Amino acid sequence: MLRVILLKKYFQARTLIKDFSYYNPTKIEFGKGKEKEIGRYIKEAGITKVLFAYGMGSIKKSGLYDETLASLNKYGIEYVELDNIVSNPLLSRVNDGVKLAKETKVQAVLGVGGGSVVDSVKAIAIGALYEGDVWDFFTNKKPVEKALRVFTVMTLAATASEMNGNTVITHDETKQKLSIQSVVVNPVLSVINPDLMASVSKDYLAYSAVDAIAHSIEIYFTASYHANFNSRLVESIIKSMMETTQILIKEPDNYDARGEFAWIATQALNGLTPAGTQGGSFPNHMIEHALSALYNVAHGAGLSVVIPAWMKWYKNQNLPMFERFAKEIFGLSTADEGIAALENWFEKIGSPITLEGLNIPKNGIESLAENAYEVGKVWGLAEAYSVETIKEILNKA
Amino acid sequence: MLRVILLKKYFQARTLIKDFSYYNPTKIEFGKGKEKEIGRYIKEAGITKVLFAYGMGSIKKSGLYDETLASLNKYGIEYVELDNIVSNPLLSRVNDGVKLAKETKVQAVLGVGGGSVVDSVKAIAIGALYEGDVWDFFTNKKPVEKALRVFTVMTLAATASEMNGNTVITHDETKQKLSIQSVVVNPVLSVINPDLMASVSKDYLAYSAVDAIAHSIEIYFTASYHANFNSRLVESIIKSMMETTQILIKEPDNYDARGEFAWIATQALNGLTPAGTQGGSFPNHMIEHALSALYNVAHGAGLSVVIPAWMKWYKNQNLPMFERFAKEIFGLSTADEGIAALENWFEKIGSPITLEGLNIPKNGIESLAENAYEVGKVWGLAEAYSVETIKEILNKA
Repeated sequence: MLRVILLKKYFQARTLIKDFSYYNPTKIEFGKGKEKEIGRYIKEAGITKVLFAYGMGSIKKSGLYDETLASLNKYGIEYVELDNIVSNPLLSRVNDGVKLAKETKVQAVLGVGGGSVVDSVKAIAIGALYEGDVWDFFTNKKPVEKALRVFTVMTLAATASEMNGNTVITHDETKQKLSIQSVVVNPVLSVINPDLMASVSKDYLAYSAVDAIAHSIEIYFTASYHANFNSRLVESIIKSMMETTQILIKEPDNYDARGEFAWIATQALNGLTPAGTQGGSFPNHMIEHALSALYNVAHGAGLSVVIPAWMKWYKNQNLPMFERFAKEIFGLSTADEGIAALENWFEKIGSPITLEGLNIPKNGIESLAENAYEVGKVWGLAEAYSVETIKEILNKA
Repeated sequence: MLRVILLKKYFQARTLIKDFSYYNPTKIEFGKGKEKEIGRYIKEAGITKVLFAYGMGSIKKSGLYDETLASLNKYGIEYVELDNIVSNPLLSRVNDGVKLAKETKVQAVLGVGGGSVVDSVKAIAIGALYEGDVWDFFTNKKPVEKALRVFTVMTLAATASEMNGNTVITHDETKQKLSIQSVVVNPVLSVINPDLMASVSKDYLAYSAVDAIAHSIEIYFTASYHANFNSRLVESIIKSMMETTQILIKEPDNYDARGEFAWIATQALNGLTPAGTQGGSFPNHMIEHALSALYNVAHGAGLSVVIPAWMKWYKNQNLPMFERFAKEIFGLSTADEGIAALENWFEKIGSPITLEGLNIPKNGIESLAENAYEVGKVWGLAEAYSVETIKEILNKA
């Protein structure tokens, strides 16, 4: 009997692939002109009134604003509008949206824009059905249980917010940049039309590529168990992201590359890459959140500064994966060579690789580390990343 | 103006990535002992009565049958049973299930077994809400619009039926083996517990590996447009499938390899690999369906015979992809070397590679080709694959 128990323990111990639930009910409508049908998609879900949110007006210049209204009108969908959502979206604007959603009794939210707009409408969708302060969900005071339904039309591919339940919002006063993850705010439907992304600037193309790559490598390097299939999937994402970025720098109108880029970015954070992995975390995002919150830098720009610094600091904790990364992505041999190659590539596509490149002074590191440490507390990373450790990492940037 | 029109035509013409809708609302519950919660999962969906279907009794020997009933009872789910579902499942047994489902007014179906059981419950789910003959849906006489909800507990990983809307059924008399694809029968929830698959025989392990590989290479080779990301995804699936199969032949109890194998098989046919591709088809499945229908061979065993023969016949129609395949999967240079290596690997893991190995006589080729051609008609492949062409391919087997 004892032998059976010991054997069982042995088998238990060697199980590395972790239990998981995979559930991603978002429908993606990918292709030319699909945004023209957004009114129909919303109607088919039985919805008659939405809060329509967008950013700083670029969709008015491009004609997408008029197109959206035309589609909503065509299918008899009533709407109220919320504009002026900024990058690194703010809690104050979310609160405006929550108030508007409650007053006008909308049944759903429609975000037309990039990750900031979509993250904001998700937070609004949660807040609209809650009597208290929506920030309670970001600080883990309340679990997310319900939300208005979310629809999106994407104009920037980077965050995968179009196919996940994540929202990242910055508190205006405390400057905390925190997140929620809940399938409750997975969009019901997202439109990805590569044509709508053709006007993205070269800078933001680069930042978006960095963001998507960052999403896939965090767990790749940090997980205590990462099946070969997951690793290959991540490597496929990174290689294809690098390829399509390079094509798009030269040919912004290349529809196929734009489409592949968008779809890869979606795959990079829709729940697929970490399925079954054990023990992964997002330290680079933790540190970058401080950069964005305190200096309002673009998320991808912050990541291309943090990632090489973190890699140099972390590499010896998982040398085999760093060597694998060097080999698979760049055809190189050592961890250091792989890190240098990635850093060079970030630079080559025009994303900054030093704090200086972000106009962040060295004497800002102290408060950045303190801010990041607070994020780490909420994310369960405080033990592995003390303020001193984060400073050590940032000093490599 | 003309120049604008011409330019537009040019841009239209060079768009290769195809519009698509991606929607896969199946929830996967992956991990140890998750089958014990099947009653709870069904209850949480608001269901109180199911048709519980299974195969030839292996689940009674393994204890899974008792475990399932215990879980249904625990959560107060009523059930009626349908047993004796065979491999290459038959329309007659589906009709029995449809009758039973209608008489007992179940709200959902639960399949506990492999692809044959799951395909059968999907067909039953469709037939239960239709007054006519369920075969009408397989012959495209009727579009699928509604079905009872589907739940599964998997005991074999191969078909990905646990996470797609496909069902393949054989007509008892005409011996046609036809399929339905509809998200309406995507399972609401599927349990994948690698422990439940540890007792799969070496033969069926090999056939399952072949099946999953077959699912991913059909479109890889036949599509007129296949983004690099899709190709890499397919190569990741094939490499990981080969790796885990080789581990499992030696260590059937290796939980991690069993789990990775199962999850890869799911990814191979859940809609992800073909997203955005243009012009792909499933000729190997078309031909194999004739082998299974007329000689009742295991689907994977039939595929390992058809695939190398088809590759030899087809290779010149897409030589770059065959060379890529040889290089990426086997580190070889030529199309022929890649085909030979795959054929050898099939043989090495114990899956047949000749008609003789399936005990199919050469004089059976005529009627096989005719049967496959009928499948091709329903699948829109009749023009590319005449009876003569199919005979030519089968003569290479």
